[in-house]
Amino acid sequence: MMRTMSEARGNMDKGSVYTSVVKLWERFFPIAPNLVASQIEATSQIEFQFLGENMPQSTKTAIMVIGGAEDKVHGREILYNFFGRSGSTEARIAIIPSASREPAIIGDRYLTIFGEMGAKGIEILDIRDREQCEDPLMQSYVENCTGVFMTGGDQLRLCGLLADTPLMKTVRERARRGEITLAGTSAGAAVMGHYMIAGGGSGESPNRALVDMTTGLGIIPEVIVDQHFHNRNRMARLMSAIAAYPDRMGIGIDEDTCALFEGDGTLQVIGKGTVTILDPGELCYTNHAKVGATDPLSIGNLRLHILSHSDRYDFQKRMPFFPGCGIV
Amino acid sequence: MMRTMSEARGNMDKGSVYTSVVKLWERFFPIAPNLVASQIEATSQIEFQFLGENMPQSTKTAIMVIGGAEDKVHGREILYNFFGRSGSTEARIAIIPSASREPAIIGDRYLTIFGEMGAKGIEILDIRDREQCEDPLMQSYVENCTGVFMTGGDQLRLCGLLADTPLMKTVRERARRGEITLAGTSAGAAVMGHYMIAGGGSGESPNRALVDMTTGLGIIPEVIVDQHFHNRNRMARLMSAIAAYPDRMGIGIDEDTCALFEGDGTLQVIGKGTVTILDPGELCYTNHAKVGATDPLSIGNLRLHILSHSDRYDFQKRMPFFPGCGIV
Repeated sequence: MMRTMSEARGNMDKGSVYTSVVKLWERFFPIAPNLVASQIEATSQIEFQFLGENMPQSTKTAIMVIGGAEDKVHGREILYNFFGRSGSTEARIAIIPSASREPAIIGDRYLTIFGEMGAKGIEILDIRDREQCEDPLMQSYVENCTGVFMTGGDQLRLCGLLADTPLMKTVRERARRGEITLAGTSAGAAVMGHYMIAGGGSGESPNRALVDMTTGLGIIPEVIVDQHFHNRNRMARLMSAIAAYPDRMGIGIDEDTCALFEGDGTLQVIGKGTVTILDPGELCYTNHAKVGATDPLSIGNLRLHILSHSDRYDFQKRMPFFPGCGIV
Repeated sequence: MMRTMSEARGNMDKGSVYTSVVKLWERFFPIAPNLVASQIEATSQIEFQFLGENMPQSTKTAIMVIGGAEDKVHGREILYNFFGRSGSTEARIAIIPSASREPAIIGDRYLTIFGEMGAKGIEILDIRDREQCEDPLMQSYVENCTGVFMTGGDQLRLCGLLADTPLMKTVRERARRGEITLAGTSAGAAVMGHYMIAGGGSGESPNRALVDMTTGLGIIPEVIVDQHFHNRNRMARLMSAIAAYPDRMGIGIDEDTCALFEGDGTLQVIGKGTVTILDPGELCYTNHAKVGATDPLSIGNLRLHILSHSDRYDFQKRMPFFPGCGIV
């Protein structure tokens, strides 16, 4: 049911850049990297000046919404960040590969990666049946883990297996309390909102039939996530989704890119591409409720931001912040 | 050099809906449909109540920017509109097929269409050499015509042949004075701005290399036009273009859709799809000037509107107007 950590540790690069960073940290701040944001915050400002640009920027927990196809081979920026924010070498990671039809293969792949990085404990929660979500062993693991990683696959499958289960409830609540870092890539990202894009098309004027909407896992209920975003030309489908639910915020995440939701109500971008914010806060009109399924939509007054690496978005202020412009 | 009107008139549908409309007009208002906007404006309000929903909405001149692949067979809404705004049965139309590598074929196709509608005069200005643009016969025709139609093809070819020629100067100035209706479809639409999208890609995060910019014919200098817009997933390339020229307005026009620029500083949408307005008037930041050609762009604070049939946009107020919401 739970498959235990493989011998991947045997392949670990003990001299990796990340390990050096942790050692540097320990030299200046004789406390172990900790998962509770409040304990870290006071020191993080000082600590960062010792870190290189490509090193993990924080050890605070976060909800990491990844656009799919994240780098698993070279710099592994996003996966390293997940590892770091899950407690680095103290991390106890749960991998949920249930979106995939090949959960064993994809689960093992991430297990090897996090093992190479040096995580203390890794379990693959190979859930193929809703009843497994009540298993006391699994429940106990997610109650004590420091990071949860949901892989890609089919978001409908993932929701079908996990929605409204005790296991998912524990994961969601611990993530929202900042006790764990929760990451989802591709299908694992799609499920983050209360409303979820189950599928859709491209190459058409925005219209109701361009996007199939259903209910997600409600981890960040306020957003509607779309992934592989510009790579698969999904702007029109996200606009169509937002026309249907203009009380939500549209978040389009490119491949190998992560929208990192931190406990302070901001999002930060890491990775190679962009995060698109579609804010309907000032929407003045949409004909969504009036028109046929394939009729073109009218949508007045969306606010649109394209964020790239290190840019931030503040959900309270509904404003982007760009380190590049000097005002952060 | 100029090919004269073919025998297409033989195929004309004299009993067409449009002809009936014109007859209706003549019954109530015993003046000929006229090209000068100011002469028509006073009566147009009253006149519209007699017209059905699918009939041409106005006989005022306009600049018609068409997203390509406009209906040439069934309702022909956009082409009928061009015909009506060029003077209906009094129209003297110049077809410029020079964007195309098969100008004779495409020119004949439009000649047949406008002939069937009942235009009084139609000439194909088959310009294949810049010197032809100084030809006194052609010059005389564009000085006296009532409508000019630029076909699709390659916008670089069209600009290469027409830019900075006496013929183009006459067309542009007459269009801007409201003396003629000027339409361009696909490549013929792309050339409308001072800056022109010469080519580009899709399926990528917005980036500088995603769009090739050059100079257009400057008919509506304030805008950057992109055509076949949602059909070819061109949102990211138009955003990249606007990041380069944030003093312009981005106008993305879907296939079989027309952004109808009227003399009063408004645009109205007709046709099947949508017109996307990308307004950088409140842009707070872009890293466009700082980043490498393929680096992802940051763009803060674009305003985005999706307009469908009958919606309007007011360029002075920078605001959309939606008949569907009751406030127009």
